[in-house]
Amino acid sequence: MMRTRPLKVALLGCGVVGSEVARIMTTHAADLTARIGAPVELAGIAVRRPNRVREGVPAELVTTDATALVKRGDIDVVVEVIGGIEPARSLISTAFEHGASVVSANKALVAQDGAALHAAALERGVDLYYEAAVAGAIPLVRPLRESLAGDKVNRVLGIVNGTTNFILDRMDTSGAGYSEALDEATALGYAEADPTADVEGFDAAAKAAILAGIAFHTRVTLDDVHREGITEVTASDIASAKRMGCTVKLLAICERAEDGRSVTARVHPAMIPLSHPLASVREAYNAVFVEAEAAGRLMFYGPGAGGLPTASAVLGDLVAACRNRLGQTTGPGESAYTRLPVSPMGDVITRYHISLDVADKPGVLAQVATVFSEHGVSIDTVRQQGKDGEASLVVVTHQASDAALTATVEALRRLDTVRDVASIMRVEGE
Amino acid sequence: MMRTRPLKVALLGCGVVGSEVARIMTTHAADLTARIGAPVELAGIAVRRPNRVREGVPAELVTTDATALVKRGDIDVVVEVIGGIEPARSLISTAFEHGASVVSANKALVAQDGAALHAAALERGVDLYYEAAVAGAIPLVRPLRESLAGDKVNRVLGIVNGTTNFILDRMDTSGAGYSEALDEATALGYAEADPTADVEGFDAAAKAAILAGIAFHTRVTLDDVHREGITEVTASDIASAKRMGCTVKLLAICERAEDGRSVTARVHPAMIPLSHPLASVREAYNAVFVEAEAAGRLMFYGPGAGGLPTASAVLGDLVAACRNRLGQTTGPGESAYTRLPVSPMGDVITRYHISLDVADKPGVLAQVATVFSEHGVSIDTVRQQGKDGEASLVVVTHQASDAALTATVEALRRLDTVRDVASIMRVEGE
Repeated sequence: MMRTRPLKVALLGCGVVGSEVARIMTTHAADLTARIGAPVELAGIAVRRPNRVREGVPAELVTTDATALVKRGDIDVVVEVIGGIEPARSLISTAFEHGASVVSANKALVAQDGAALHAAALERGVDLYYEAAVAGAIPLVRPLRESLAGDKVNRVLGIVNGTTNFILDRMDTSGAGYSEALDEATALGYAEADPTADVEGFDAAAKAAILAGIAFHTRVTLDDVHREGITEVTASDIASAKRMGCTVKLLAICERAEDGRSVTARVHPAMIPLSHPLASVREAYNAVFVEAEAAGRLMFYGPGAGGLPTASAVLGDLVAACRNRLGQTTGPGESAYTRLPVSPMGDVITRYHISLDVADKPGVLAQVATVFSEHGVSIDTVRQQGKDGEASLVVVTHQASDAALTATVEALRRLDTVRDVASIMRVEGE
Repeated sequence: MMRTRPLKVALLGCGVVGSEVARIMTTHAADLTARIGAPVELAGIAVRRPNRVREGVPAELVTTDATALVKRGDIDVVVEVIGGIEPARSLISTAFEHGASVVSANKALVAQDGAALHAAALERGVDLYYEAAVAGAIPLVRPLRESLAGDKVNRVLGIVNGTTNFILDRMDTSGAGYSEALDEATALGYAEADPTADVEGFDAAAKAAILAGIAFHTRVTLDDVHREGITEVTASDIASAKRMGCTVKLLAICERAEDGRSVTARVHPAMIPLSHPLASVREAYNAVFVEAEAAGRLMFYGPGAGGLPTASAVLGDLVAACRNRLGQTTGPGESAYTRLPVSPMGDVITRYHISLDVADKPGVLAQVATVFSEHGVSIDTVRQQGKDGEASLVVVTHQASDAALTATVEALRRLDTVRDVASIMRVEGE
């Protein structure tokens, strides 16, 4: 029954992920053959800088002409681990046009153009897989799309960016400020030279868009995701969180509205109780909770990044794409039939922790409480502290809409007695 | 493109799981239709006692003749949630013979006859899925079989039985003895009237066999799994574990030998450090660690039992089987190409915690230490305690083979100065 013509794979990109994919395809060739049902052969590796190709990568397969590689016509599966929008997008389109299936680790591209890519794959009768785009080695796309295909997911909440989790974890354990923790992350290789995509939340937002789309069977793109990074998180925020029995994490949260008619997707730092399982996710690990109507609360945990773990996810998809190829079939494609709209951040309901610097005189608390009350934001606890003639108020609210909270904060800023709204942070996971 | 003839499903069994499957198929029919690509229709429900069918289950579909139902010839997928070996096995065989795919939640049957069932499905070109057989709603079979298809799994370690975890958790938190905790579990519905399958470890051993087979691409049956239940775990064992900063859990452990030439699968109570994530898995929850060469350490956590969570897993498989049916294809079947043998328990390498009641006289520790040394078992720590003229020794070993440990214990029992080997428990998760 074993087919003799090998399946041919074109690898686009040979950096930290690509070089591991190439290595495993060579060292574990016999296993891959047995699992796929036919041998699988690396037919070419497209790189930008051939002189920087890592040791162990077969030099004779390296080319700088990625377009020619995907146009060869005999390629069964294109593995795209270049990242970024172009030239990845054009190369994937060309791959589809030439009848190849595609396995991608490209969160930015899938979050921006997932619908168009899925449509192109469907038109050509080929596969598009991207497990590696979300949370590295952690199986998440396939469980959401397939294992939970008979269930109704109501919420996805998780830590999906290792760099920012490493930084926040360091701030929490050492009391360091943001810059100091970022420097450490950079020195240890957890943060890139330009850390913008991670620390400003773009990477996590792309993952949130992908997860929300799959979980709710609708289309969610990067632009639909409310995004706040961790650059404004201070040592004082972390200390405040500790006083509340909390820690600060950058969370990706995708929710179905209570009435079921819309969804939201957001990425922002939030305080979560130390008793919450996500609070103990340390260093660069990722963890994602999925809450479904029938399944209940599931958690998936593991290494969210790194060349080797990401290669594991890529190779799992590669095996699936190759098996489908042999069986002349395709896996489940895009499911966006619910067409649920994505509501703006103002509609999100959550709790808030707000620190105010106020004048140290009588009546201030009453004034502040009145502003909250006028905007329909109910207060859970207030802590007053005097320090050197100034005073601070720390308010934790009950659940309120983000719009009501924003209006409350604007009104607070207009009070003469409020010198500064020192920090606002959402409280999640309760 | 929407096919108009609905896919027909026969449901065998309508207890806690089956009734939820029937209910969700009705209430979520539109979602299932959209996700499958064709309507799916419940064609019949076979039960043993029609007068005991739950509210909400369509009475007109109920039959007591399961064989006639699976023989109808127009059934696309048979969902088997009866459990046990017979009549489930015969009904599944008949279903395959009549061209139906099968979704089963039957861990005992799959652990015993998985190879034969897979062969029958392959012969008829239909599917056999059983995500619900392991760890309820937690996606585990599909991630192991598909997401990690390009990786090499070295270890699967987890809590896969909710009943025993509930009992051990109660013993740990309340200091209760085994019988008392079992009574509480029974009263709360966590343990069945006859709890043998759970407390003697048969249920967990079946799951271990299934997980080991999939993880290592070989055949592992229930008989290959070393099995010890929790009935011998005493309040004193739990207290000893606490003194070591540990708790006691019933673990299922599947390992590839260091030389890669064999595997082991076992279920037994073990002490694990409180810092280990499995230590905080409370009540009837399940959690499974998967360690793979490239992916690293993944954890899957969620409700391991219950009608509704198990129905979620059944329905995910049902959607997959229906999609395959429409695409005239099948999902990945059995992968047992490595043919790795299963080594006996004696070959397992782990650590041990041993409590001895000894005579309170000089030289006993030296005698005991000599016995360990003669059997090549290296001691990590010894704690000596005198109590009322008697003394106790608590020995924690370094890693040793189970065979060496067993021989050590036999030799210890022969010492005049050793009055009793009060308890032996393995130490895992370090």
